[in-house]
Amino acid sequence: MYRTHTCGELRIGDAGKKVTLAGWVQRTRKFGSMTFIDLRDRYGITQLVLDGDTDLGREYVIQATGQVVKRESVNANLPTGEIEIKVESINVLNKAQTPPFTIEEVSDGGEDLRAKYRYLDLRRAPLQRALALRHRLAQEVRNYLDAQGFMEVETPYLIKSTPEGARDFVVPSRMNQGQFYALPQSPQTFKQLLMVAGYDRYFQIVRCFRDEDLRADRQPEFTQIDCEMSFVQQEDVLDTFEGMMRAMFRNALGVDIPNPLPRMSWYDAMDRYGSDKPDIRFGMEIHEISSLVKGHGFGVFDSADYVGAICVPGAAGYTRKQIDELTEWVKRPQVGAKGLIYIRMGEEGIKSSVDKFYTPEQLSEVAAAIGAKQGDLIFCLCGAKRKTQTQLGVLRIEMGNRLGLRDPKVFAPLWIVDFPLLEWDDETNRFYAMHHPFTAPKPEHMELFYSNRKEDLEKVCANAYDFVLNGNELGGGSIRIHQADVQERMFEVLGISKEDADYKFGFIINAFKYGAPPHGGLAFGFDRLCALFGGQETIRDYIAFPKNNQGRDVMIDSPSLIDREQLEELKLIVKTEK
Amino acid sequence: MYRTHTCGELRIGDAGKKVTLAGWVQRTRKFGSMTFIDLRDRYGITQLVLDGDTDLGREYVIQATGQVVKRESVNANLPTGEIEIKVESINVLNKAQTPPFTIEEVSDGGEDLRAKYRYLDLRRAPLQRALALRHRLAQEVRNYLDAQGFMEVETPYLIKSTPEGARDFVVPSRMNQGQFYALPQSPQTFKQLLMVAGYDRYFQIVRCFRDEDLRADRQPEFTQIDCEMSFVQQEDVLDTFEGMMRAMFRNALGVDIPNPLPRMSWYDAMDRYGSDKPDIRFGMEIHEISSLVKGHGFGVFDSADYVGAICVPGAAGYTRKQIDELTEWVKRPQVGAKGLIYIRMGEEGIKSSVDKFYTPEQLSEVAAAIGAKQGDLIFCLCGAKRKTQTQLGVLRIEMGNRLGLRDPKVFAPLWIVDFPLLEWDDETNRFYAMHHPFTAPKPEHMELFYSNRKEDLEKVCANAYDFVLNGNELGGGSIRIHQADVQERMFEVLGISKEDADYKFGFIINAFKYGAPPHGGLAFGFDRLCALFGGQETIRDYIAFPKNNQGRDVMIDSPSLIDREQLEELKLIVKTEK
Repeated sequence: MYRTHTCGELRIGDAGKKVTLAGWVQRTRKFGSMTFIDLRDRYGITQLVLDGDTDLGREYVIQATGQVVKRESVNANLPTGEIEIKVESINVLNKAQTPPFTIEEVSDGGEDLRAKYRYLDLRRAPLQRALALRHRLAQEVRNYLDAQGFMEVETPYLIKSTPEGARDFVVPSRMNQGQFYALPQSPQTFKQLLMVAGYDRYFQIVRCFRDEDLRADRQPEFTQIDCEMSFVQQEDVLDTFEGMMRAMFRNALGVDIPNPLPRMSWYDAMDRYGSDKPDIRFGMEIHEISSLVKGHGFGVFDSADYVGAICVPGAAGYTRKQIDELTEWVKRPQVGAKGLIYIRMGEEGIKSSVDKFYTPEQLSEVAAAIGAKQGDLIFCLCGAKRKTQTQLGVLRIEMGNRLGLRDPKVFAPLWIVDFPLLEWDDETNRFYAMHHPFTAPKPEHMELFYSNRKEDLEKVCANAYDFVLNGNELGGGSIRIHQADVQERMFEVLGISKEDADYKFGFIINAFKYGAPPHGGLAFGFDRLCALFGGQETIRDYIAFPKNNQGRDVMIDSPSLIDREQLEELKLIVKTEK
Repeated sequence: MYRTHTCGELRIGDAGKKVTLAGWVQRTRKFGSMTFIDLRDRYGITQLVLDGDTDLGREYVIQATGQVVKRESVNANLPTGEIEIKVESINVLNKAQTPPFTIEEVSDGGEDLRAKYRYLDLRRAPLQRALALRHRLAQEVRNYLDAQGFMEVETPYLIKSTPEGARDFVVPSRMNQGQFYALPQSPQTFKQLLMVAGYDRYFQIVRCFRDEDLRADRQPEFTQIDCEMSFVQQEDVLDTFEGMMRAMFRNALGVDIPNPLPRMSWYDAMDRYGSDKPDIRFGMEIHEISSLVKGHGFGVFDSADYVGAICVPGAAGYTRKQIDELTEWVKRPQVGAKGLIYIRMGEEGIKSSVDKFYTPEQLSEVAAAIGAKQGDLIFCLCGAKRKTQTQLGVLRIEMGNRLGLRDPKVFAPLWIVDFPLLEWDDETNRFYAMHHPFTAPKPEHMELFYSNRKEDLEKVCANAYDFVLNGNELGGGSIRIHQADVQERMFEVLGISKEDADYKFGFIINAFKYGAPPHGGLAFGFDRLCALFGGQETIRDYIAFPKNNQGRDVMIDSPSLIDREQLEELKLIVKTEK
């Protein structure tokens, strides 16, 4: 070992000991005839002091031997701040070129540069903390699930291309010419087969792959905490994973989350928050005001299917300019509203952009209905119900951000339950599974599920659930279909032909015929879970070697061209563009 | 929850309780007016008893409610054997078609059939035990390494195609046309970058991929326990991972392995066992007898570079026919010996196949030299030294098998150390890295390493080490090169051009310029580790969903054709054979 101690462990009680430390030179400072060196490793920083000069550059790797002594001026910011090492000898283990950016809490390097030199960026304390938290959380997950009788089972990565959901990454097979494996979007079918196989409680922290056009903060490969249980109802699954999240919050963050966690139906979440992943750290709930505002001659409202409003607390002081800017903001295609009506509860009395249609009393009635008080600002949108609610939900989040109501150190988890089973798509004129095609209809909706009327099918609910934290869907799952005939009906409802279903899912439909137990489970997005636990909105710092928005790893410069011989062996030709 | 208890937990102390169990019908037996049902889940088997008949088939999934009662005839083979459930009601949760083979300790199904219905084969107790052991071992590994300050860091699966070693699986990139990712053969470069990044102690239980022509018991995807440490010498790495293996043996099997573990140099292993992964559960060591047998007129020995022998204890009774069969066996191309000389220490005195060249006294001298006694049988082979040793090593293992000296419940781990750094290949007329191109030469051999003479380079040793168990290499690693100039020299020695090295490894050569610490690590093959811990030679039962020798998953029927549109999006054309 090149060291007797790490750079994070020496304390005043060690004074007098002769020690050897090894690490990176964070900083050197001359002070009279003395030189001070901050020596850094993963565990901390220790100050070295030596007589005379050195020519050690930033990030040199050194080994230093000397005596632990009490420091004259204590550094209260460092756990090692009461001591320093009076250096007797220094051994340079490796020199270092000057790094292209500073290795500090906040670096001076731009994002692209830091991505290229990821191994240097990873030396920075915020990234070290991020990955240490990730490590801790992974261990907590496994310890909890192991104690609960879950078995970790590794499922294959070279599997079969499946339809539904996103695009698969495929892997050409050399030994089976013209054929391809696919990388899993999730181990869904395998974990269900494990239930059929009697494994009873399965988990895995597992990589998944999606060849999607990358939106901001999406990665082509991502990690899931994947779980499944047999002989359970929804309540058992929620209990178990509430327990897991509770243990993680407690053990990793020292935070106690409510017991039991709040639950909200999907319908309530849409009505009250305009989102199936509501951020309940703040109020500003959506209220339908259709009955109050319709029939007063304001055509826009009168012709609307739905009129809804949110009350922005203390925002009556917003200027006309600010409101105009917000109006433009909601009219962008990303939100898609037609316009924005406001009611201002200012000192000068109640005023709105629709004063000519409503008396102050009528506006006061609206205000009272949604709980607005003096000093608040009300925003109204109208149109088709779910669409308008969604727009109000987006506006609500934006106002939450602007008003600083979304403190990342506050944690407000909840379950969303009672999802619709199916989602109708007008464009393709068919139903899609809201979760995935293995989600079971609620037993009490089984009759509706076998109906051929669209209105009936739209009413079918699933025992599906999402774990939502601070406006993010962190996890989701459902009680699954375990009967072959119900699964076949599901494929029928989704317009997947029997041939297609047999070709792509034959093995699972078949498996269900040999004694499948009732089962259910869920999966958490581990990258985002780590980021949110760390109080961050973006996942990139919580992944050691992430890819950029073009799916590239700019550090290793991948993807890249491969040898002609390799293509030849795979019997593949790459088309060249004309 | 569909049950109050599992099928493995009820005991005599529970008598009188009303319980509900759920599981699979293992067996039903009529006995007079009563029916007995063995109900099975992952946790065990509990007997149900009910009045009258049932029409429950094998593998039906049922839920049964009733009272725990003391059993009249205790079944000592079952932990639940003192009780049974007097059934009040049975609820069929799912019917089952009759499985195509029996779900018993030993099944009547053939290998292909069981592979196709893997989810049914996985219900069998031996596979459940295998995967439970694997789960346990994975948790032990993580708990041990976590306690030792190792951080689990996930490295990417979509990386860059690298040379050296086996063929990569590649993944076409849709967003970067004509370019490919590669699936990792190991996270080698990433773990070294993590050391450069200061993570100090890294581990991961990680999937790796090799597109090799599959020999028996190889899988295209396999799992590694992958580890790396900074500021360490070889001794520190061996200590750490001896400790890990010791904990695994103790906690998972209740077995204590020697402390410290035996170590053997690569040269000794080759000389004494003809293998760099010696099975030291039994002796039968190889002895060089060149000096004793040369110069007596036996041309075959006289012209040989090396003559070696093993002594097979108690085998003097082998018939001529048996010896002829073994002679044919060693002459097969897989072994490649030219012939087999024997010396029989029988009751009728010492006799050999070369009696006309050697007096009984001369043969006795050979026998004495290798420690053979009355009743033993000596086999001699000759030729080039390492090749002959290897052949003797293969023969030794075969004799060990035939004599039952390789008990899978006996564990004889050891470290092989002091490997040569390089291996010369006559065919391509170049050196290859014996471990991989990141392994460091021993510091004391650095001068030889910079020599341009083949003989010098052949003498260079590495601080490389293999963990060997019962004749299997379970793990291996080395102290790595951490200096950019040494790494460049390594590529030069391996005949990798500067351009090639820069293109393929530029990022790691570059990383080493920014302050790489001394580091080293190793990786264990987790599939085989599990199998050996379980007392099995083949890994297939220790992988939930393995592939067959053609790299196919016959259960899901993968790899398979993909849609034309998918190929179109990837701009790929599959060549069709003429």
